[in-house]
Amino acid sequence: MRRVDVVVVGAGLAGLSAARSLAGEADVLVLEARDRVGGRTVGHTFPNGCSVEMGGQWVGGAHTELLQLTGELGLETFPTYDEGAGLTVLDGQRRQWLDETIGLPDSTAREIGRVTDSLGALAERVDLNAPWRVPEAEALDQRTVESWLSEATADPLAQAYFRVITPAVFAAETHEVPLLHFLFYVRSGGSLDYLVTTAGGAQESRIVGGTHRICEEIAAGLGSDRVILDAPVDAIEQDADAARVIHGGDVTEARRVIVTLPPALAGRLRYRPSLPSGRDTLTQRYPMGRVIKVQLLYDEPFWRTEGLNGQVLSFDDPIATTFDNSPPDGRCGVLMGFAEAEHARRLGQLDLATRRRSVVDCMVRFFGPRARNSRDYVELDWTAEEYTRGCYGGRPAAGVWTGYGSTLTEPIGRIHWAGAETSPVSNGYMDGAVRSGLRAAAEVLTS
Amino acid sequence: MRRVDVVVVGAGLAGLSAARSLAGEADVLVLEARDRVGGRTVGHTFPNGCSVEMGGQWVGGAHTELLQLTGELGLETFPTYDEGAGLTVLDGQRRQWLDETIGLPDSTAREIGRVTDSLGALAERVDLNAPWRVPEAEALDQRTVESWLSEATADPLAQAYFRVITPAVFAAETHEVPLLHFLFYVRSGGSLDYLVTTAGGAQESRIVGGTHRICEEIAAGLGSDRVILDAPVDAIEQDADAARVIHGGDVTEARRVIVTLPPALAGRLRYRPSLPSGRDTLTQRYPMGRVIKVQLLYDEPFWRTEGLNGQVLSFDDPIATTFDNSPPDGRCGVLMGFAEAEHARRLGQLDLATRRRSVVDCMVRFFGPRARNSRDYVELDWTAEEYTRGCYGGRPAAGVWTGYGSTLTEPIGRIHWAGAETSPVSNGYMDGAVRSGLRAAAEVLTS
Repeated sequence: MRRVDVVVVGAGLAGLSAARSLAGEADVLVLEARDRVGGRTVGHTFPNGCSVEMGGQWVGGAHTELLQLTGELGLETFPTYDEGAGLTVLDGQRRQWLDETIGLPDSTAREIGRVTDSLGALAERVDLNAPWRVPEAEALDQRTVESWLSEATADPLAQAYFRVITPAVFAAETHEVPLLHFLFYVRSGGSLDYLVTTAGGAQESRIVGGTHRICEEIAAGLGSDRVILDAPVDAIEQDADAARVIHGGDVTEARRVIVTLPPALAGRLRYRPSLPSGRDTLTQRYPMGRVIKVQLLYDEPFWRTEGLNGQVLSFDDPIATTFDNSPPDGRCGVLMGFAEAEHARRLGQLDLATRRRSVVDCMVRFFGPRARNSRDYVELDWTAEEYTRGCYGGRPAAGVWTGYGSTLTEPIGRIHWAGAETSPVSNGYMDGAVRSGLRAAAEVLTS
Repeated sequence: MRRVDVVVVGAGLAGLSAARSLAGEADVLVLEARDRVGGRTVGHTFPNGCSVEMGGQWVGGAHTELLQLTGELGLETFPTYDEGAGLTVLDGQRRQWLDETIGLPDSTAREIGRVTDSLGALAERVDLNAPWRVPEAEALDQRTVESWLSEATADPLAQAYFRVITPAVFAAETHEVPLLHFLFYVRSGGSLDYLVTTAGGAQESRIVGGTHRICEEIAAGLGSDRVILDAPVDAIEQDADAARVIHGGDVTEARRVIVTLPPALAGRLRYRPSLPSGRDTLTQRYPMGRVIKVQLLYDEPFWRTEGLNGQVLSFDDPIATTFDNSPPDGRCGVLMGFAEAEHARRLGQLDLATRRRSVVDCMVRFFGPRARNSRDYVELDWTAEEYTRGCYGGRPAAGVWTGYGSTLTEPIGRIHWAGAETSPVSNGYMDGAVRSGLRAAAEVLTS
């Protein structure tokens, strides 16, 4: 039996940030279920050497803890390609846009702005450390974005916009997201506009070489004896003397344990003593979003020469959002797209060849016949990933924030909780994951 | 390593019914996490020898598979005490009733009847084997009972009635239950009236000695070498040759495995190969209901002499429903009550003494000062039970029936699924558990 001060469960951004923060002051061991570090960040390198992210990939200026970390690791950022016109696809029509109307009728664009402002005003009242304290919290928590939407605006096109944007942000449908969580998340991320914006928003920058390099660099710094791969944790026991983390046939004893898994997966570990009912009730009601991320490789970013920035918002298609994901030198072109929520479910039921055809068909509708000549196709269905089971993150069911919200982060004995879902700031984002790791590390040090 | 034909995971009604059905034709082994059989049926014996059920307890005439089983086991039923007036408590007033108005104004009683009928008409269209095939299934699945309720009736008291009845049936609030699941459940159980009725309904009869005797008798018949207690299953592996069920340090090899855990708990086992994303998505979105069952022991069933049947429906109190749970000979009195859904959460946060006081206060408001003189108090908070984590059962989140419903019962390789949640008939009830066990056993035999 190995003995350390702190075991960290999960070698994603939260876990490795925590371990890095603790490494100088405590003997820390990170246990990772997969054969790689990175969690929801993972790279793919095309045969031509071009590398793309199959998971979290963007850094916004507000992501200050993430930027601080990447800076310290010597990683560089570059701007997400954002030159030229965006496309909105609606009723089979392709609308180019350069301004905030995103190609919609002025009246609808104004209505979207008005509704976004009123959402923002509601969100302003949410205490990020205790969303359950907002006035009328229970009423906000017991209704969904969908039920609010039909009251918020009578403009069907504005409603449709929020039904496209909600999956783009939450990988969940409007009927799956409690209004209180929507408000919390918007405030946690800055604003709805910030979350859906490229330059000046949450999609502003990328990391040279890919975001998976962040975890790889931290793990390399910790040393291979402090990060154990292929070590899925089965159980965590604790008593007055110590905690014991059981993984396969091995047991590691520690004074403190930081669990960085999203709530749904943290709830699948076995605990001795078993966890209080409130915590367990929460983990039963915190499902992961559903998303398939796809990337198509082209000889060149041909859409750029046509004045397009590669960004699509489609009201019609299973791939509802796309981005130009080409490498910084533009030596080849990559179009990246997301199938989210119900789109992910439907695409996920197809066989690979049919799904690829469906994705290419979307790209052809968006970018014309040259989009058919892709050199390669890669995809990642995050719901099929045993050790994540969905992206972008977990979200609470109705009534969870107000009934059980405090159990999301409250330590239970020697167990501390981290992960992007636990961060008051940048909740669900890589920056939130880093923040949660630093917070949990600080908890451990003061305990 | 032990080798058998079939491993059954869980020694509740589903698992033991399956094992009993298979025992003559296959070598079957039941693995049970607890130190007892029975699952969601469990008895408590007061110091005076009077026995009560802390879990599932009633048998209705429609529960034909359960009645067949108890008959074969030589167990006898007796009628739930139902003589005299019921009580409805509303706005601090106690209303006695003997008829279907349940003490509400005639106009509201009629309105409740009308809404119940329209619910029934909707429910009639649901195919119990494929609820996702009902017309407009997605729309019904994406809204909650709460959102439907405000459209179904403008009578605030009728609305309030459904907000009391829904927790009584689902141990969940109206905003937690998708309308499609409500309709499915009502049709699966017969009708909403059947589900909430004592004589002639789902609460008609009780088992002499308690419902836990059913599983005890089956287990005794199987023999102690076929039911292993204290054997929580960790993982299930399968390949072309066999399945291996891992529990603690032991491995049992089998040709088939029947998992009877409710979906939320089944999702917490580890599977090799890991389960398809659809099945996992479902288990993330199938939380258990929340209920605390309480029982107060009295020297005699004093309410009977006052012409009361012991049944309360309270619009005001944390204990919203009560029953006379006295033994068949009436030699002592037992009042049983439920705190469900949000009531269970709030009561669950109190310490035991305060909660007991709160429960007794309810009984005093319902049955007068004599209710204060209880001899004993027992309770079971099912959300705190590690190997159940909630009652009466699991329910799907919005979109789960239409998106992933088939994965509730579809075998995955050598793994078959049972449990009350998987039954088209009497879903969520003991009868449904038995039916699911028989169905899974039949699947195994024909495979």
